[in-house]
Amino acid sequence: MTLRFALLGAGRIGLVHAKAVTENPQAKLVAVADAFEETAKSLIATYGGEFRTIDAIAAADDIDAVLICTPTNTHADLIEKFAHAGKAIFCEKPIDLSIERVNDCLKVVQETNATLMVGFNRRFDPHFIALKDTITAGKIGKIEMINIISRDPGAPPPEYIKVSGGIFKDMTIHDFDMARFLLGEEIETVMASASVLVDPEIGALGDFDSANVILTTASGKQCAISNSRRATYGYDQRIEVHGSLGMVAAENQREVSIEVATAGGYTRPPLYDFFMTRYIAAYAGEIAAFIANLAGDMPASPSGEDGLRALAIAQATLKSVNEGRAVKVSEVI
Amino acid sequence: MTLRFALLGAGRIGLVHAKAVTENPQAKLVAVADAFEETAKSLIATYGGEFRTIDAIAAADDIDAVLICTPTNTHADLIEKFAHAGKAIFCEKPIDLSIERVNDCLKVVQETNATLMVGFNRRFDPHFIALKDTITAGKIGKIEMINIISRDPGAPPPEYIKVSGGIFKDMTIHDFDMARFLLGEEIETVMASASVLVDPEIGALGDFDSANVILTTASGKQCAISNSRRATYGYDQRIEVHGSLGMVAAENQREVSIEVATAGGYTRPPLYDFFMTRYIAAYAGEIAAFIANLAGDMPASPSGEDGLRALAIAQATLKSVNEGRAVKVSEVI
Amino acid sequence: MTLRFALLGAGRIGLVHAKAVTENPQAKLVAVADAFEETAKSLIATYGGEFRTIDAIAAADDIDAVLICTPTNTHADLIEKFAHAGKAIFCEKPIDLSIERVNDCLKVVQETNATLMVGFNRRFDPHFIALKDTITAGKIGKIEMINIISRDPGAPPPEYIKVSGGIFKDMTIHDFDMARFLLGEEIETVMASASVLVDPEIGALGDFDSANVILTTASGKQCAISNSRRATYGYDQRIEVHGSLGMVAAENQREVSIEVATAGGYTRPPLYDFFMTRYIAAYAGEIAAFIANLAGDMPASPSGEDGLRALAIAQATLKSVNEGRAVKVSEVI
Amino acid sequence: MTLRFALLGAGRIGLVHAKAVTENPQAKLVAVADAFEETAKSLIATYGGEFRTIDAIAAADDIDAVLICTPTNTHADLIEKFAHAGKAIFCEKPIDLSIERVNDCLKVVQETNATLMVGFNRRFDPHFIALKDTITAGKIGKIEMINIISRDPGAPPPEYIKVSGGIFKDMTIHDFDMARFLLGEEIETVMASASVLVDPEIGALGDFDSANVILTTASGKQCAISNSRRATYGYDQRIEVHGSLGMVAAENQREVSIEVATAGGYTRPPLYDFFMTRYIAAYAGEIAAFIANLAGDMPASPSGEDGLRALAIAQATLKSVNEGRAVKVSEVI
Repeated sequence: MTLRFALLGAGRIGLVHAKAVTENPQAKLVAVADAFEETAKSLIATYGGEFRTIDAIAAADDIDAVLICTPTNTHADLIEKFAHAGKAIFCEKPIDLSIERVNDCLKVVQETNATLMVGFNRRFDPHFIALKDTITAGKIGKIEMINIISRDPGAPPPEYIKVSGGIFKDMTIHDFDMARFLLGEEIETVMASASVLVDPEIGALGDFDSANVILTTASGKQCAISNSRRATYGYDQRIEVHGSLGMVAAENQREVSIEVATAGGYTRPPLYDFFMTRYIAAYAGEIAAFIANLAGDMPASPSGEDGLRALAIAQATLKSVNEGRAVKVSEVI
Repeated sequence: MTLRFALLGAGRIGLVHAKAVTENPQAKLVAVADAFEETAKSLIATYGGEFRTIDAIAAADDIDAVLICTPTNTHADLIEKFAHAGKAIFCEKPIDLSIERVNDCLKVVQETNATLMVGFNRRFDPHFIALKDTITAGKIGKIEMINIISRDPGAPPPEYIKVSGGIFKDMTIHDFDMARFLLGEEIETVMASASVLVDPEIGALGDFDSANVILTTASGKQCAISNSRRATYGYDQRIEVHGSLGMVAAENQREVSIEVATAGGYTRPPLYDFFMTRYIAAYAGEIAAFIANLAGDMPASPSGEDGLRALAIAQATLKSVNEGRAVKVSEVI
Repeated sequence: MTLRFALLGAGRIGLVHAKAVTENPQAKLVAVADAFEETAKSLIATYGGEFRTIDAIAAADDIDAVLICTPTNTHADLIEKFAHAGKAIFCEKPIDLSIERVNDCLKVVQETNATLMVGFNRRFDPHFIALKDTITAGKIGKIEMINIISRDPGAPPPEYIKVSGGIFKDMTIHDFDMARFLLGEEIETVMASASVLVDPEIGALGDFDSANVILTTASGKQCAISNSRRATYGYDQRIEVHGSLGMVAAENQREVSIEVATAGGYTRPPLYDFFMTRYIAAYAGEIAAFIANLAGDMPASPSGEDGLRALAIAQATLKSVNEGRAVKVSEVI
Repeated sequence: MTLRFALLGAGRIGLVHAKAVTENPQAKLVAVADAFEETAKSLIATYGGEFRTIDAIAAADDIDAVLICTPTNTHADLIEKFAHAGKAIFCEKPIDLSIERVNDCLKVVQETNATLMVGFNRRFDPHFIALKDTITAGKIGKIEMINIISRDPGAPPPEYIKVSGGIFKDMTIHDFDMARFLLGEEIETVMASASVLVDPEIGALGDFDSANVILTTASGKQCAISNSRRATYGYDQRIEVHGSLGMVAAENQREVSIEVATAGGYTRPPLYDFFMTRYIAAYAGEIAAFIANLAGDMPASPSGEDGLRALAIAQATLKSVNEGRAVKVSEVI
């Protein structure tokens, strides 16, 4: 059986997923939609498929699944539309910036018994999978602490910041998902501190560019997250998990592993400087997992619920920063 | 000129300082006091000096400086006594567990114009000095974030926990001092989360063994500290400082630098498992700095004020944990 | 323009190249030949193309280039056949195990003005390219020494050893090519020592499994190569180049970059344990380079001459081991 | 019991040993001799002892052991003198540059039943000891290959080169000793290549500055040594031992373990740039071992025989370079 895909949104992440679909022997890219026909056509030239409108895709018999890669503010509407249309849905994170809207959307997913997978790609990074496997194998014992350092190479432009939902819903949300993924226990409480150290314009837009967050579970496990919108040395993505028997850490990634030694010292190249090169294997892995799940008739994961939970932690984090206190996730969900 | 020292307290840290004094050509160990004469005599057998009472030392003409290595609850009294006696004073941290008592004590130091250095030895660790030098040289630009991971190899016994003042005043206090040392700006606000994951007995005594702390300065710089009383892999002491132009990190230390590769992977030995071996150079360095300061007639550093500040942050941290809110250091000082 | 390819030999390396061709937008896999039709058909099922005989491919109008992935003893004949047929030729190393046969073959290539690229894939490894780029950029000054450590995860079976041409023509030949690639100067003299430490059966077949080789150029530059047919910790592939201003080293590669710390130490996973996973990017890169050269009408590189030179060094190395003396490459070529 | 030492030669290595003796509770520095009384007096000012002539020391009742730190060409004479005088002898390497002279000298040592330890300090480096311990513990199985990379930060001045005995007797001799120490089997054959790449003046003096050596044992174990008189990045001292079950490697050492990450990459400081700082622990360790051996009435190690063997390998290496062939150590001893 070959799964027939439609891609909604032919932007840069759409390109990544189109590639993953066409390279997968179990899948086929049938249709591509984009508000700009030119953009869709350009992608089609490389990866095949035909240009269609979203409505045509929803009505089509020859489409089994859709990949929603359109702007965030269209995600929830599209999920609902394609849930009603009976298509399996992969949606880029986040489902929506509003918890209420996400709740409504997930209700539709549930009522229509639709398949929904949310694009927390990092769960499919080989290094983080190895980390999770190490935990599962019991090598570090009972988890006590997680430390995530997650820094972007540079701050996005103001136009992006404006529609991003803020650092916690846009950037830290990946770390919140990783925390949940690794901890195996829900986050109960959030404490956070945030400031504007990188770009005053970010502050002018009411957002932050530097933050530290402490997440706590009911059993007292803790996860500390450190974020910055700037790292001159590349895309800094480290996770370490400390347990009763030991620790496991996933190291940073760079394009090539060379070291140059001179009178000035021993120098290795900077890190990957773009999330798409850093997480190239993760993007391919998540689409492969989506296809495998569909092919095996299994629930897709991460689920809509996972999307909701991470969003709620982000909301609670913002509340903690604003109110200077520990906030329970249950206050916002 | 040779500085003549008396050592008060001949326990394990007293031994370390006795060694540092005897190996320093500018210093001489003249007298040793200890509640247990036997303990003092044993130290004297190796490092020289004669056994005297504390009163005799305070009254002696042939003593220029004292090293206070007695139990914490005697520190403030001894500082006051030797401040009045006109001796230069090196005192192991903390001055006292009570901010009020420290304030009183520092008043005496000020009135008597005494020289007081507090034993935050880590400021003299060669790796942390290199880190500070890198910052000072401007290589990482303006500091934005500090991340300290500080884990003990194992929890101390309950008897120690009881008199320790709790994890923040006993263990994290070193990290608070490093944060101040590196940030170059006072801590304004503290948020913290703490739990008991390692040893329930620690919880039964009202203390914690696992904690995360976020410190914030007036300008929005942040320092995240992660502590655990247990690390199977050794004494985990990492600091990284992230700035506008880059980052500098001090790596963990181990006794030997070998790596064994087998079918099971590439393995390096665990870290140092004891603070005295890990910080052996730092201990020697701090006594050398004390002597150099005295010899040069310069103020000793870290000062009593440094001791007070770190203690106040510890107090604010505990308050933050207990009250689940951001606490200003000014609330407790 | 799309280049039309025929693949000769559908074994494991044929699969790797078929994938590279089909994923390249400038190339198309048109035909596949293999002594076993079943094997060819299985590859065709995944990557397309049609099954043809070698003669049919040589006679075909719709084939621009061939990829020779058949057994070594057929390489020279096939190169000559397709040189006469006017096809561009990519041939897996080695051209032949006999220098005389290679010389004859290259004469045909020259007379027919054929395009020939030899599959020294490591020149296309991203890490080794970065190493070469560092040298070219002048960062390490004038090259003085190269150290190559190259160890296989395990010895091949006796059947393979028998037809391999021996360790120097089969395994070290890659290192000889890298030495030439990096040194930018021909090898003049070889000294080598070899023994049987891994598997006595290898010795029984007249081959070695452990060897050290010293290559010297006319200007006195040296390259030391260390080989073993066994490394429990994976496929050990390190190169370092030392020059007047510094050194550059390419590190080993592993599948995932995690580190597990326990009471037993800090452990990273073993290395890749297979040349095809270790050099996956190199294989893709060499086919891309072949296509790019053809598309741009440029000479393909590494050339037949490169194949000959590496083989001659291998021959000289064996002579050095057998005669216990420094052997000039000019003695064998 | 306290061992009473005389130091012969108060140069820089004499200072190192004087410090080791004075810090050792089982030893006491009683006398110091030096051709320049001033030099001796300066050392005495720091470490104590009294100035005496060599003859006075040989005749003295209050001296148990001597440390020979004088120029190489005096070593053999002094060993013989003090062997006859009944003193225990520690002598810096080499005993002499002539194998014949060493043989004669060792005959005297044997006839007088004198205690002689030769200063191959690297055997006492904590990292190399850990490496040896790993081998002894069986963790890497049966040894097959050793790779030593040993590079000096910079070439010594011509005056030194002239009296050094050449690179193999001066520099590589340490690596030869390490090879013997680690292999646990005598070296049978040597092949080597050497050139002048660093400093033409070294060539003008008939010496080399860049060399590769392959040592082979009777059972076929091999050791590859790579030497250069120049390494801009510091004192490069790496050893790895490869065996049937795995590998163990001793890493390079630097003064501080920090890493600075900027847009230019991740940079660690250069290595130690001086043998005395790099091997500070080794120097202290060898004197401690000498004292412990004497105190325990055990034979001192490395022995005179060890000194002779390493010298013979050096001689064979030079012969191999000159004659372009594999040379048996038995040809020169």
